Formats: sequence, structure tokens, C-alpha cells
Amino acid sequence: MQLAELADRSRVSIPSIKYYLREGLLPPGERTGRSRASYDDDHLQRLRLIRALVEAGGLSLSEVRAVLDSLDSQPSSVHEVFGAALGGEAAHVADDDGRAARLVADLGWAVEPDCAPMADLASALAALEDGGLELSDEHLVELGRRVEPVAALEIDSIPLDSPAEVLRYVVLGTVLVRPVILALRELAHQDASQRRFDGLSDSPT
Amino acid sequence: MQLAELADRSRVSIPSIKYYLREGLLPPGERTGRSRASYDDDHLQRLRLIRALVEAGGLSLSEVRAVLDSLDSQPSSVHEVFGAALGGEAAHVADDDGRAARLVADLGWAVEPDCAPMADLASALAALEDGGLELSDEHLVELGRRVEPVAALEIDSIPLDSPAEVLRYVVLGTVLVRPVILALRELAHQDASQRRFDGLSDSPT
Repeated sequence: MQLAELADRSRVSIPSIKYYLREGLLPPGERTGRSRASYDDDHLQRLRLIRALVEAGGLSLSEVRAVLDSLDSQPSSVHEVFGAALGGEAAHVADDDGRAARLVADLGWAVEPDCAPMADLASALAALEDGGLELSDEHLVELGRRVEPVAALEIDSIPLDSPAEVLRYVVLGTVLVRPVILALRELAHQDASQRRFDGLSDSPT
Repeated sequence: MQLAELADRSRVSIPSIKYYLREGLLPPGERTGRSRASYDDDHLQRLRLIRALVEAGGLSLSEVRAVLDSLDSQPSSVHEVFGAALGGEAAHVADDDGRAARLVADLGWAVEPDCAPMADLASALAALEDGGLELSDEHLVELGRRVEPVAALEIDSIPLDSPAEVLRYVVLGTVLVRPVILALRELAHQDASQRRFDGLSDSPT
């Protein structure tokens, strides 16, 4: 297909497609003239993926590149993929009061102490404090206990057909299931509010 | 305190503080000279909150303004706050194939059909498809079932001391607990990967 059709079917603008081509996120089409090229379904699929990562996943272009690179890698075994997912990405963790480490220890989780999610947890806990929202250690442990089955479902339902498939589920699942979980959480808030609200209405407060 | 000390203690730069003052996100200090003003602990607390909302919450300035405005409102009753949380923010939901509505119906949740989280859910489900990550309806329902206790914990543990307190927990909790949950999810992924990885090692694959 021509560029115009590719733009139309992917719902990505022509300038953005040209940008992705220049940046190498999208492989070049087949040259069909001096300034014309033809694109196939692989281009369309990749463009849709890029759009999903940017729009729903909220990823920056360099993050999109990292995701695509990792999808293009050829893992040799399912073990290798799980090993990588399990290791986490190395990061400096500014866990000044050790609260993040203590929380994970209380939960009994096997995690890398110096990985990106540990850094994220430490700064998320610091932000709670900055925002003046005091949550007790017990509350945070209980929150972790309740997040555990969500994460376990995601990992346990990855089909083990091939290393490449496992990789796709691990990499895309982390990014693309996130907005699904966040939307479900806010909808479940409404449902839980309704129930608590009804409970309040029954008794004087 | 002077501006320099306020910047130091809040870890917000002086230009950013001046910007927040100009935009009215931060109330003016008490004039102590032609171009000097003095700030108090309320200013410090609000700046820390703004920083938390921007950095950890990932909010835009207009979203920060909406959060601050809603915190500054004076709810007359706990019911009113729950009622507002329960209603959700009106939004146009582009749920083309009705999948989001079906999912929520399968979960049996009482939610507003045209609210922002429903729109978020519909576009998150569309992004899964765009990304080529097929999750069955059964899997999504199970995901919702497992998110439910997380959201219920958040709502049920809101202290009912005063309408203003409830409002603070509802508004700040939605934004500031989000990054905590996301970090916990990725750490729990590591733990679950480890267990599934160990399971694979025991048996030939």
C-alpha cells in the first residue's frame, strides 16, 4: 500500500510516519519510484503497536524504541525471557528511610533490590508523604497483598508457546495492561464507593 | 520564610514557584517589602503537594489545578463526597465494539456509563488490540475480579472523620496511590516470574 493508505489504516499522520521512518522505528518500505515506496501489513501492524505504546502506554519515543528493540531481539529460551523479566532493570534506588525495602521484605517478595520498580516504589512512597496522605505500613502491606494476585494472573497466563511469544507478552503486557488495570481500578472505586455510601445511608453518621 | 528557603525546603525551583504564584496555584505570600514576601508552612505544604502531583502523579498543570480546586471546595457532608466520587466525571466513551461496557456488566459493577474511567477502559482495550496483545474476555473479567479487592481496600480504609478529610483521601488517593500500585505490580511480577521460572526449571519444557 501507499503511504496515504498506511496513514489512513493505522490512524497515524503522514508526518509522524515519516518521522518514525527517519528514526528507524519503522523499517523502510519497498522503493517503487524516485520518491515513492510501498508498505505491507507488517508496517501497518508495527505502526499500530507504536501508536498503542505512545497513546495508551504513555511511552516516550526512546521508551518505544527500547520496547521495539527488545521485541526484535531473539531470545533463545523461555527461561532466558523469564530470567530477564525477573532480574528487572538496574536503577539507583533513593530509598532514604528504607521504607520501600521494608515493605517488600514484609511482603516476602523475591525482587532485585536495585531495579527500576524499586526506585519507582520509593519515590511513590515519598510522594504520598509530600502530598500529606499518610498511609500506615500495615495498610501498604495489605495493598501489596491485594496487588499480588493481579500480577500473578498476568504472569501465570502467559502462553509458553515460544520464547518470542513469551517475550511479547512480558514486554507488551507490562506496558499495555497497565492502563487497563488503572481504568478498572477507578471503576471499581465507583462500585466500592456506592457500597460504602449505601452503608452510610443506613446509619446516622 | 523567604522565597529562597521555601524553594530549598520544598525542593521546587524559584522559577517554578514564581510560575505557580502567577498562575494562582499557590496563594501569594505576605508582602514584607517592595519586592519581598514571606511564606509560611501552608505554602510549603502546598508546594510539596504540587510537586508530588506533578512528579509522582504525572499530572499536567491544569489537572493539578483541578485537584487543588476540588481540595479547596467545602463539601458539606461525607455523603456528598462519596456521591461525587461515585458519579465519576462525565466523558464521551468511544466504546465501538461495546467491549468495555460488556466487561463492566460481567463484573456486575455499579458505575456511571459515561465517565472518564469508562472512556479510559475502552481506549485501553482498543490499544491492547492495536498492540497485537490478545486477551480473552474471560481473562479480562478475572483481571477485574482481582483489581476489585485493591480498589475496595482503598475506599473502605478512608477515615470518615470529616467531609474535608474524606475528600482529601478520595482526591489525593486516586492520584498518589496509583504510582504505588503500579510499582508494587511490577515488583510482584518479578516475584511471580521467579516462581513460574522455578516451576519451569523443575520440568522439561
